[in-house]
Amino acid sequence: MSYALTFHATPVFPRGFRCASRNVGLKPSARDLTLFASDVDAAAAAVFTRNHFPGAPIILGRETIRGGVLRAIIANSKVSNVATGLRGVEHARRMAVAAATELGTDPNRVLVSSTGVIGVQLPIEKIESGVVGMTADLQDDPMVGAEGIMTTDTHPKALSASVGDATITWVAKGSGMIEPNMATMLSYIFTDAAFDAPTLDRLLRAAAAPTFNMLSVDTDTSTSDTCAILANGLAGEVDEAEFLSALTAGCRRMTEILARDGEGAEHLVRVTVRGARNETEAHVVAKSILNSPLVKTMVHGADPNVGRLLMAVGKCFDCTIRPDTTDAWINGFQVVGHGERLAFDDAVVRETLSREVVDLAVSLGVGDGEAVAYGCDLTKGYVDENASYYSS
Amino acid sequence: MSYALTFHATPVFPRGFRCASRNVGLKPSARDLTLFASDVDAAAAAVFTRNHFPGAPIILGRETIRGGVLRAIIANSKVSNVATGLRGVEHARRMAVAAATELGTDPNRVLVSSTGVIGVQLPIEKIESGVVGMTADLQDDPMVGAEGIMTTDTHPKALSASVGDATITWVAKGSGMIEPNMATMLSYIFTDAAFDAPTLDRLLRAAAAPTFNMLSVDTDTSTSDTCAILANGLAGEVDEAEFLSALTAGCRRMTEILARDGEGAEHLVRVTVRGARNETEAHVVAKSILNSPLVKTMVHGADPNVGRLLMAVGKCFDCTIRPDTTDAWINGFQVVGHGERLAFDDAVVRETLSREVVDLAVSLGVGDGEAVAYGCDLTKGYVDENASYYSS
Repeated sequence: MSYALTFHATPVFPRGFRCASRNVGLKPSARDLTLFASDVDAAAAAVFTRNHFPGAPIILGRETIRGGVLRAIIANSKVSNVATGLRGVEHARRMAVAAATELGTDPNRVLVSSTGVIGVQLPIEKIESGVVGMTADLQDDPMVGAEGIMTTDTHPKALSASVGDATITWVAKGSGMIEPNMATMLSYIFTDAAFDAPTLDRLLRAAAAPTFNMLSVDTDTSTSDTCAILANGLAGEVDEAEFLSALTAGCRRMTEILARDGEGAEHLVRVTVRGARNETEAHVVAKSILNSPLVKTMVHGADPNVGRLLMAVGKCFDCTIRPDTTDAWINGFQVVGHGERLAFDDAVVRETLSREVVDLAVSLGVGDGEAVAYGCDLTKGYVDENASYYSS
Repeated sequence: MSYALTFHATPVFPRGFRCASRNVGLKPSARDLTLFASDVDAAAAAVFTRNHFPGAPIILGRETIRGGVLRAIIANSKVSNVATGLRGVEHARRMAVAAATELGTDPNRVLVSSTGVIGVQLPIEKIESGVVGMTADLQDDPMVGAEGIMTTDTHPKALSASVGDATITWVAKGSGMIEPNMATMLSYIFTDAAFDAPTLDRLLRAAAAPTFNMLSVDTDTSTSDTCAILANGLAGEVDEAEFLSALTAGCRRMTEILARDGEGAEHLVRVTVRGARNETEAHVVAKSILNSPLVKTMVHGADPNVGRLLMAVGKCFDCTIRPDTTDAWINGFQVVGHGERLAFDDAVVRETLSREVVDLAVSLGVGDGEAVAYGCDLTKGYVDENASYYSS
């Protein structure tokens, strides 16, 4: 699980990729429209939200990605174009056409994303006129694109790393309404390694499963989740196994960055479950601990309320749980043995809970299933931020 | 669903039932030990938590209830006697023996409950010496017992109503760690109607399913949940259908009282789902809406962020959801039609969201399944209360 990948101190793009972002009037003044482009056609794959109310860009994107080729991604923030009916889908198509026209490519080679408030029609004219001339702004810093797709994120999120002669770059946004399912928030991955679309699709799914799909800020699955990868091949072929390891390591790091920036979050929480009956049950138990409001508030309060860990394991009704084989650790200190609270040094464990990263671990002792889940604590900041998100 | 039951202005016990409660030193000064007793043997049934880490009183209680006869319930607050191993079970047995000795009955006729912090051994000697003489304190006010079982509850909870010649009385506690499953927090129901134990068991399960089992404060299932009913027969026979209607109505009212007193709660939230493929899917969708942190904070902020309702419906991946047949209402105002946000009067709907009771309704248009779920909003008070519950 712990393939060590060295990320660049400052993120860069792989050769042939650039981006631009602007304010086109959706937000008062911050960047709200972003264009990511490859100089040449790139093989592409994507995974999308499983929410039954996908946004218009998802409906269009599922069609677009079937071609397996992309030249660009156009994304706006502030308005998600979800629950907007046929008009919303038409707006998403117009957004693809506008970007394709600006770049001189085919609309079927442009992936569209929108993120922000649900149920509001996209001000498509602002986007159509705003995109004109963006080609001239295209530049090399992925952070510029990361900034343009932010909603409640407190900082832009980009990473890059080398793998053989190639580079992989991750650009993402996400802070709340995050429990991806077969996908993620908005997350774009660019590489100059050469892979065909079916291989990319397989690699993306393999990398997303233990990373983005094990992330949860608030149990709520967005209607706009998109994770796409573009490989333009300009660096030639790269060893597939090595590439997958690097891809997964970068997705894991981005998952941790997103979890740490969860709405109101003050701690990154990692939950490791070992010894489950199988991997599926390990996932269920890890998510149950991670998503428990009482575990999340315990971390927030740095209060080693061990009973809540057991409670959260025990409410996985359909999993094989044996109290007498269940052990638990907080930041490496064993606090439960054979299903009973141990007499640990409360003050010492309490002290470790104030660290920025909190590791909770449970061993179920009934099989070989393992999983790690990533999330954050529950704070008053989360309540503040979400009590008036729509109207603010 | 809406059988109208008139509750007594001041709750009373059915004939033959009384209770007493005391401080025996578990809490600094508040009542922490409670005894409920019937003058004669009562037929009895109970449902308990499905959590894989049941408290010692649950392990003992499952054995006790097999007899189908109870004379008393003894319950303490502050320490839940969970994750305490064999010693915990021994303590629960000693608690039953102490109450039985005081009352002059058999320990197998005493149900034991403990509620409070998990993972701490019960100070059994305090309970054993504290129960001595409690028979002399037995009196007629159910509120005295309700007070003794409180943890983070802001007020004691008891109700009573007449059904034919008989009375039914509900006494309960619960505020956090509440998403019962086949049971409830601590909830005791007393009646002088005459039913045998198997019938009582059937009636209790039928009444709990659409009420206590549709309650969720925070998605967390307690390790101590117990819902027990005692019928001492002193009022003779009562029409079974009428009794079940009254029993269910009282359980529903108590469910609403518990939800309204959820930790930090400022609103009771009721979610009604109609037109689901079947009742099971209606339950899943209703709970998904009720438990969504983003729906809960939306209610808290009185912010009609309709997209969150759709998101919460849409993340029920395994249910039949068709965007084009989905409608939604907030406090009677339709806000979604055919899966699209309608142009409703935002200010009017916002105004209704500041009411103490908030009704959210969704019609899925794919079948006859219906369900109502009961919960509350998510506030900074919840975070405050749970960040230091263990150590405070």
